[in-house]
Amino acid sequence: MSDRREFRDLDDPAEARRAIGSLDLEPAHESVPLEEADGRVLAERIDADLDVPGFDRASMDGYAVRARDTFGADEADPIELDLIGAVHAGAEPDVELEAGSCAEISTGAVMPPGADAVVMVERTDEIDPGDGETKRIAIRTSVAPGDNVMVAGADIAAGQRALGPNTRLTPREIGLLSALGHETVPVRGRPRIGIVSTGDELVRPGEEIDSDRGQIYDVNSTTIAAAVEEAGGEPILYPHAGDDYAEMQRLLVRAADECDLVLSSGSTSASAVDVIYQVIEDRGELLVHGVSVKPGKPMLVGRIDRSADADRAGKSAYVGLPGYPVSALTIFRTFVAPAIREAAGHPEPRTATIDGEMAVRERYGEGRLRLMPVGVLERPEASDPPLVYPVDKGSGATTSLVEADGVVAVDPDTEYLDTGERVEVQLFSSEVRPPTLLGVGEDDPALNRLLDRLDRPRYLPVGSREGLRRLRGGLPDVAVTAGPVDRNVESVGLGGWTREWGLVVPAGNPAGVSGLADLVDRDLRFLNRDRNSGLRGSLEAALDGLATERGLESGDLVASIDGYEWTVRAFESPPRRVKAGDADVGIGLRSTAETLDLAFLPLGKQDVRIRANPERTGTEGIEEIEQALAAIDLVLEDLPGFEPAGENEST
Amino acid sequence: MSDRREFRDLDDPAEARRAIGSLDLEPAHESVPLEEADGRVLAERIDADLDVPGFDRASMDGYAVRARDTFGADEADPIELDLIGAVHAGAEPDVELEAGSCAEISTGAVMPPGADAVVMVERTDEIDPGDGETKRIAIRTSVAPGDNVMVAGADIAAGQRALGPNTRLTPREIGLLSALGHETVPVRGRPRIGIVSTGDELVRPGEEIDSDRGQIYDVNSTTIAAAVEEAGGEPILYPHAGDDYAEMQRLLVRAADECDLVLSSGSTSASAVDVIYQVIEDRGELLVHGVSVKPGKPMLVGRIDRSADADRAGKSAYVGLPGYPVSALTIFRTFVAPAIREAAGHPEPRTATIDGEMAVRERYGEGRLRLMPVGVLERPEASDPPLVYPVDKGSGATTSLVEADGVVAVDPDTEYLDTGERVEVQLFSSEVRPPTLLGVGEDDPALNRLLDRLDRPRYLPVGSREGLRRLRGGLPDVAVTAGPVDRNVESVGLGGWTREWGLVVPAGNPAGVSGLADLVDRDLRFLNRDRNSGLRGSLEAALDGLATERGLESGDLVASIDGYEWTVRAFESPPRRVKAGDADVGIGLRSTAETLDLAFLPLGKQDVRIRANPERTGTEGIEEIEQALAAIDLVLEDLPGFEPAGENEST
Repeated sequence: MSDRREFRDLDDPAEARRAIGSLDLEPAHESVPLEEADGRVLAERIDADLDVPGFDRASMDGYAVRARDTFGADEADPIELDLIGAVHAGAEPDVELEAGSCAEISTGAVMPPGADAVVMVERTDEIDPGDGETKRIAIRTSVAPGDNVMVAGADIAAGQRALGPNTRLTPREIGLLSALGHETVPVRGRPRIGIVSTGDELVRPGEEIDSDRGQIYDVNSTTIAAAVEEAGGEPILYPHAGDDYAEMQRLLVRAADECDLVLSSGSTSASAVDVIYQVIEDRGELLVHGVSVKPGKPMLVGRIDRSADADRAGKSAYVGLPGYPVSALTIFRTFVAPAIREAAGHPEPRTATIDGEMAVRERYGEGRLRLMPVGVLERPEASDPPLVYPVDKGSGATTSLVEADGVVAVDPDTEYLDTGERVEVQLFSSEVRPPTLLGVGEDDPALNRLLDRLDRPRYLPVGSREGLRRLRGGLPDVAVTAGPVDRNVESVGLGGWTREWGLVVPAGNPAGVSGLADLVDRDLRFLNRDRNSGLRGSLEAALDGLATERGLESGDLVASIDGYEWTVRAFESPPRRVKAGDADVGIGLRSTAETLDLAFLPLGKQDVRIRANPERTGTEGIEEIEQALAAIDLVLEDLPGFEPAGENEST
Repeated sequence: MSDRREFRDLDDPAEARRAIGSLDLEPAHESVPLEEADGRVLAERIDADLDVPGFDRASMDGYAVRARDTFGADEADPIELDLIGAVHAGAEPDVELEAGSCAEISTGAVMPPGADAVVMVERTDEIDPGDGETKRIAIRTSVAPGDNVMVAGADIAAGQRALGPNTRLTPREIGLLSALGHETVPVRGRPRIGIVSTGDELVRPGEEIDSDRGQIYDVNSTTIAAAVEEAGGEPILYPHAGDDYAEMQRLLVRAADECDLVLSSGSTSASAVDVIYQVIEDRGELLVHGVSVKPGKPMLVGRIDRSADADRAGKSAYVGLPGYPVSALTIFRTFVAPAIREAAGHPEPRTATIDGEMAVRERYGEGRLRLMPVGVLERPEASDPPLVYPVDKGSGATTSLVEADGVVAVDPDTEYLDTGERVEVQLFSSEVRPPTLLGVGEDDPALNRLLDRLDRPRYLPVGSREGLRRLRGGLPDVAVTAGPVDRNVESVGLGGWTREWGLVVPAGNPAGVSGLADLVDRDLRFLNRDRNSGLRGSLEAALDGLATERGLESGDLVASIDGYEWTVRAFESPPRRVKAGDADVGIGLRSTAETLDLAFLPLGKQDVRIRANPERTGTEGIEEIEQALAAIDLVLEDLPGFEPAGENEST
């Protein structure tokens, strides 16, 4: 390991930005059909090459006249004109006006020769003398030449500048281009961005993974591809590369041959980064190697020489993103997306920043710029700035991606952010809307359904105990607890339900497990939940009872349970492991056992309670949850072992 | 015409909104590949059906250890462990840790059996005893169980709620779905919106139009299609329908059979609207017929019965949009887009509203809600609210589409908006950015090029005279004048150029025109520019000179020119008409004559001057124009008859 490359001399972020700015990503212009032009950027100025309208056009339904024939006409003293014909939209006029005559005309029709104005139909009367004689029209108003006529080119005339280069096309510009008869539009090309995913452990979504071999799904390829598309680029996914030098080189060069920019991403191990580093040094040039930013230190910027026989000459740009998804997306957004937007001619999106107040104290002091993912929570009083809390489950966690609303940039020399300190949050986009409710606590299948009925809830399944701790800290709107609660936290009870819990064993109960005592007395491999879980709390209470019965200390009883400290994360986890054959018995819910076709030995019912932060009652989110609880029967329908709770209580 | 239907009993806008809200546009859910899911909306809750990670995973490069073996280790007193093997990412561990041993491990690799923590490589030293003996690793820190390990399911565990229904998918949610191995995603369907364009005069862009027959390009179909797409719908364009009842019915019913909502649009004439009205009454039901809003009165809302043999049963929703493009898009945005967004599950976009100050007085008083398209202009002092001015060239003008930035809703009982009055502008989207420069005045080919060098200019080619008038009114940043100026307006000269003007005649000058006098003396059909044009100004001056020479009044001289008052709109218009054979001689520029391969008889050179509003010097736009003028030689390159001006002047 001694030859591993360290990122010791880190460039500062501005240097990385400059290096990426020096790369040439700009693709050739292209021509697209008008119906695909929305959102694209004009490559060149468009001048009108025809007059719009192309003829003097009636802009009212009525009668085409010679204006001078109407002079003096009014309601009291109309002037009568001979009706000599009609002109309809889309037809060539077959009449010509002489003095004293008029022609019926529809909106949009060509003005007949001799006519220079239109009298709207509402200011006329038709006079039919009968006997096949020429009809006459009484004109009850005078008009000036040009009245109710749009002259040729009045909208836009041939030779006039219609749209400038680099105009972003929206439905409105598409309207003007339609009026000018454009079937295709010259637009800025979308830079082709090759995405090379590296790491022997990565598997594309949809394929089978083998967890025993440490395989995981490739998150970065699809995530970065979607982000490339949003920035105006065209993502090209290359088949996943292992850590082999020859394979990596072949793949990177192929991507360089075909793309304007190559992004590598996905590998979290230093050895894979080493291989890429070596390929870029051998087959291109490295401009930046490591940036003083967190997350994102292991970032590379450079160029890759294209093959001699490639369609494109020269070098492609290259950026190596860090391996963890949150890091990769953060670095992409901060450093790469602006370069893609510029190459595509897209404007910087309006920065969506909001001012918030730190809900917790956050230490820092690594001497690097930190781009800290944060969640945002609105408060009941609109005048109170929203609360901001760090979302940091480790960069390896993909759930951090969806639990954050934006990023706070923390200066390298900031040592901590204090509770209540004002911070500026860069939202991930102007469309980000913070959740209406932040909940924490137990994970529960009925709760999952209840949350479906809320507009934009965010729920962190940290367990009952940790949920209560956080509720006491004041950040969440609600905490959800299950089972016995050993903490006294002020809260407002919103309601809840009960759920049946017990031991889950394989279908048919092959080991003939009969109850809790068997865990202690027999040689069974058990699987437990962690201490934050309400299931664990109820199990502890039951074991206390058993210990008392036997005149033992709980600790001694527990010591004889094989696997009591073997804990897993969620309410379905122990039963799933039982089903997979990893354990003989797991703690769990009746509903889970039935869903997974396992056998269930009931040990009791526990209360699941939704407890509101007393300072948040009346918020939109709390009101929504109260409405959802009012329909709790519907929520619990077909959920075995679940029942509505009795009365609410405040604790 | 007496049976034309009038929109006498107009519904109020709220009623129209309710009627559209009562229509059912919601399509079935569908499944899309993950790589096409960005921007879509989840149809249902997604629970994790696997643990992420699926195994206990090293989150550092280093050594997998039994934590208890490291207790007591520190920099001064390291503990040595036997190195028994290595585990790499993507491989199944082939070692098992006993007390006193460790294994090299890469980030992302599976923790080997027996190991419960990782010591990062930076806190270790490799000790090679040589002679093929087992290497030993000196551990310079103690670690606790779980340190630098992400346990199975720690990111998200099987059974946990991952994403709620109706979640808008962004790259971040796509990341989580990738981690869960989803290859496809259940999403809300995009409502299918049929667009039926009506009007005998309409021609699809790309085809030839015959202006003599009053044909124009169909603007609404492509414009509304793009707007449908932005709202989350899938637009389906139907071939254009004439005003024939049977054809219209066939088309509307076919669209109803295939779509969730049918929009008709395009027809501006009352007779076509009558036909649609009749079809909807006969083959469906009409809920709203005319709405008290401007623009947009002739709006229809209803349902169309589907055919008995259609794939879909029941009725499709129907909205008839007004015919003029600005009206159609305004009504679509205000009434239809919200319904499409709701059916697609898209959130209302963040309203982008800004407060501005009316730059001019605007009368009104029609007793209808007016959705007034306006332009917005930032002022140099950020504390001054932006200026707002109405853009109203008549609803038939497609250029109004791109000359406006948003809409001001004016109450039915507001009679006028005063200069300086505060108004709220709803921008067309949150991405709309007002122009950096508002220019008005002469149209000129060199100016078109100059504008290409500016970031976001808006230029209204109203002619020199009208441009100066508006500059005096104080709204524009610059006015551009050509030729003699008869108005004294305070302004700051930014620079300019000269252009050669004269008479344009067919190639080879078949009539042997020799100069200005021939227009007076010979029987030639002339084509002029309007009084606002600088070309007209120079021509008037030249004719004044000729009149003086001949001892005549100018008026008498002009009276003998056939077509002197036959004016067209833009600098290329007279030469183009000459080329088309409509006139013998036109006024124009040398550059235009050369571009169009016509002959040119020079009459002089005229100054083109860019005059800045004295209150706007120093703005971004003015600075940009000054920079562009500094490179005027480049701008004028290859433009025949153009030369840089001498010195600047203030007037």
